Amino acid sequence: MSVEWTKNAAGRLVPSELNGEKQIPYMGVGKYKPKGRKYGPTITSNADFPNDGNKLLKDLKTALQKAGLKDGMTISTHHHLRNGDFLANQIFDIAKEMGVKNLRWFPSAAFPIHKHLIQYLEDGTIHHIEGSMNGPLGKFVSEGKMKGAGMLRSHGGRYQAVQDGEVKIDIAVISAPTADSFGNANGLYGPSASGLLGFALADSQYAEKVIVVTDNLVDFPCIPWQIQGNYVDFTVKVEKLGNSEEIISGTTQITKSPDRLFLAELTAKFCDAAGIIKDGFSFQSGAGGTSLAVGEFFKEIMIKKAIKARFARGGSNKYLVSMLEEGLVDYILDGQTFDLDGVRSMSENPGHTWTSPFTSYNYHSKGNFAGMVDVVILGATEVDLDFNANVVTHSDGYLLHGIGGWQNCLFSKTVILPIPLFRDRIPVIKDRVTTLCGPGELIDVIITERGIAINPLRKDLIDKVKNSGLPVKSIEELYEEAIKICGKPEEPVLGEKVIAGIKWVDGTLIDVVREVRT
Amino acid sequence: MSVEWTKNAAGRLVPSELNGEKQIPYMGVGKYKPKGRKYGPTITSNADFPNDGNKLLKDLKTALQKAGLKDGMTISTHHHLRNGDFLANQIFDIAKEMGVKNLRWFPSAAFPIHKHLIQYLEDGTIHHIEGSMNGPLGKFVSEGKMKGAGMLRSHGGRYQAVQDGEVKIDIAVISAPTADSFGNANGLYGPSASGLLGFALADSQYAEKVIVVTDNLVDFPCIPWQIQGNYVDFTVKVEKLGNSEEIISGTTQITKSPDRLFLAELTAKFCDAAGIIKDGFSFQSGAGGTSLAVGEFFKEIMIKKAIKARFARGGSNKYLVSMLEEGLVDYILDGQTFDLDGVRSMSENPGHTWTSPFTSYNYHSKGNFAGMVDVVILGATEVDLDFNANVVTHSDGYLLHGIGGWQNCLFSKTVILPIPLFRDRIPVIKDRVTTLCGPGELIDVIITERGIAINPLRKDLIDKVKNSGLPVKSIEELYEEAIKICGKPEEPVLGEKVIAGIKWVDGTLIDVVREVRT
Repeated sequence: MSVEWTKNAAGRLVPSELNGEKQIPYMGVGKYKPKGRKYGPTITSNADFPNDGNKLLKDLKTALQKAGLKDGMTISTHHHLRNGDFLANQIFDIAKEMGVKNLRWFPSAAFPIHKHLIQYLEDGTIHHIEGSMNGPLGKFVSEGKMKGAGMLRSHGGRYQAVQDGEVKIDIAVISAPTADSFGNANGLYGPSASGLLGFALADSQYAEKVIVVTDNLVDFPCIPWQIQGNYVDFTVKVEKLGNSEEIISGTTQITKSPDRLFLAELTAKFCDAAGIIKDGFSFQSGAGGTSLAVGEFFKEIMIKKAIKARFARGGSNKYLVSMLEEGLVDYILDGQTFDLDGVRSMSENPGHTWTSPFTSYNYHSKGNFAGMVDVVILGATEVDLDFNANVVTHSDGYLLHGIGGWQNCLFSKTVILPIPLFRDRIPVIKDRVTTLCGPGELIDVIITERGIAINPLRKDLIDKVKNSGLPVKSIEELYEEAIKICGKPEEPVLGEKVIAGIKWVDGTLIDVVREVRT
Repeated sequence: MSVEWTKNAAGRLVPSELNGEKQIPYMGVGKYKPKGRKYGPTITSNADFPNDGNKLLKDLKTALQKAGLKDGMTISTHHHLRNGDFLANQIFDIAKEMGVKNLRWFPSAAFPIHKHLIQYLEDGTIHHIEGSMNGPLGKFVSEGKMKGAGMLRSHGGRYQAVQDGEVKIDIAVISAPTADSFGNANGLYGPSASGLLGFALADSQYAEKVIVVTDNLVDFPCIPWQIQGNYVDFTVKVEKLGNSEEIISGTTQITKSPDRLFLAELTAKFCDAAGIIKDGFSFQSGAGGTSLAVGEFFKEIMIKKAIKARFARGGSNKYLVSMLEEGLVDYILDGQTFDLDGVRSMSENPGHTWTSPFTSYNYHSKGNFAGMVDVVILGATEVDLDFNANVVTHSDGYLLHGIGGWQNCLFSKTVILPIPLFRDRIPVIKDRVTTLCGPGELIDVIITERGIAINPLRKDLIDKVKNSGLPVKSIEELYEEAIKICGKPEEPVLGEKVIAGIKWVDGTLIDVVREVRT
């Protein structure tokens, strides 16, 4: 089958196949209608599992062998243990030892600790990675050194791909901070506590074989069961799942940078002027320094107005927890926990609820939570004059970030990107983004230190802030200002080789990333 | 296709099809190995659902129309509202009004309040019922008056049938004591609080269209979400879901009958003598008067021994809640809540955990909770000399009870049936049970007021109670004793017509029920 290239609805050239798998070009927001049925995992019988529920095996190698690990399989892991995760590296050490080749690694995200796996990408143990490849792995892949092409999906897109059978997981290995021998598991307790385990949900439900690995084995029942043992084939007890200092930060910190604080304050002022901060509203902002600061400015405004939010979505941290505990938000709908206060709160506060990519983000569903959020604060590496944005590559072409929940959050009622006008003297607003991750029609406001650009599609917002005194400009004005200061940046030199595909939330291909010529 | 009859592994004649659907004869415990894949529901897109998550329609009729209600469809409901449920009757009132015919009603159980539906069984609105048909519906069906044959499944078997695609639900209508407009729902709060909603889980996950109906609409997010709105198509607000007095009893009561108290005490003494009541053990007993009393005798023994149980499974009630709150059990794994104390405890005690037929009972899984329970106390209408038991028909042939979780619980480590030796002068131990529901190899002990019979397969139990002074006899001795007192009972006069099939936990046909000649 020869690969054909077509221009998708966003004007990006995309191939008809990648890694030998057929691709559907992006058709526009909400335009692609899936056909067919969700993936049906193999029906199993209790008769093939121990009647007393004890599925404990002596070690991970035994479990991988019993799961039938062999050439060409897809092995999934999740990233709740972040840069403290020991397990993914161990899996592929064992695969190497067993002489297994051409595996597809399907993590929900990879971290710098996984640079250990570069040797296995080089020697053919791993064929390619589908999942975000932050840092060293991103650099390796960007330079064209991975055999297959990577595939980047949003958190919701990953669930969608598994649910729809686009990615069939042969073996899911779930790092579980607490578990019983039946396989019920949670992330709330134990030396490797990570908060929740939602990123492993799809893997548990749809993988052919599921292995739960824990360093905190408790008697049945492990409660709560964020992962249900009824989906689990084997359990394994290990000494140490990960490095707790890198799993979760002891504490998250608000930015001290005056520039970022300025952006954060401007963002909060904009939301206030636009009438978004009102009683019963909802918001989502990340755990980065600027986002945390936005939350704190929201808090000030809410206290002044004597109002509360109905819910806050997103990763939890001590600032959000304090808002919950002070009664300023009714609920935290938590997707991943960023600090110890988040973990504590999740086990203590009934209003601190764990969510999953299924409930929050899956687009091939009957709705998800993202659309119910009044305002979401996100980042971007680049934005173009049509508000299209990039979140995975830098302007030098290097693929250094994952999509995370970013694409999914674009469905919130108002999407705001507080970004500096330039970074290292490279303008952030460009003629054309290096990689397209999010269509401009879903991005409403760009907030920079030199002015605010509102997407012309959002006439309502433009009207609302008209007399607010806020520095509203057109995106073209901001673009010109940056060029005036930095000059027009050179385009990166990219090769022909496609090193990764970028999926839209519906499984269509919105863009590809090409290798960087070094 | 002509129907063929074969003797299944339990020696019962079963047909090759029922209601035009192919049947697999029961092959023995754990012998039938399913092939194929779980049912894959249609993939949906968020693009077809309101972006703000508000799926509220003006009434149930509109929702049924939008769901495409038409002739021959399968409509499912659940029974958490028990005899207080208004909804099932309303659905078929609307179907009748719309002139829709030949529906299959697939409730998790029917109650006397649903005798309202007999008119629709007569006029062809409903073709047949698959689900337990307690009381008046059971009588109607027993007399051969339903067009199709009924199909009885255990709670776990119902989940299995839906999961495996044996029963395809067109429209699930979920009675939700609390819900938001997105469809997140729970049974914990509101005027129609029922505790949990686990019996509707499979329906929400696998039905083509899902309607959530509530009389207690709350702002998003409805927390906890026992049913996830991501599976829900439409939501409806009604004035009143049901009659709260019949949904849940104000209080459950232990039997005052001296005969039953004697049976309960004997059961507890047996468990103690057999070494079952030890620190960290687990048990399940129902909410009937005798079962409650067994729990209270367990409690006395536990206090005397200064031990506690790890968990108690099954329906919750004030007695079980008191054990939880006094620290005598670590966890209640609750399948349905029987009284107001149960509902209160579930919302207050983290150790009071809700389960579902998926986690507790599904046999086409990777294990379930039933096998992990040390001892389960169950009832039966009849038992034979091989310990085979009946739980659905009376000795006069009438089908008056559902299977409930009974078959699923047989997988517990020790299964005890405390039953009177005779009821209304009809012996309970028979040569042959009227309807076979559970294979004798899974039933360990029969406890009657005139002696205890232990299944010869359980040599370990026989040894353990050898010198206990307990009145252990052979089942044949008990059988003879009953006949000596009551005389040999007459067999009921049954017709040829099959009025219902009885499924085993793996979807095979273990027996059929024939009409009663009146």
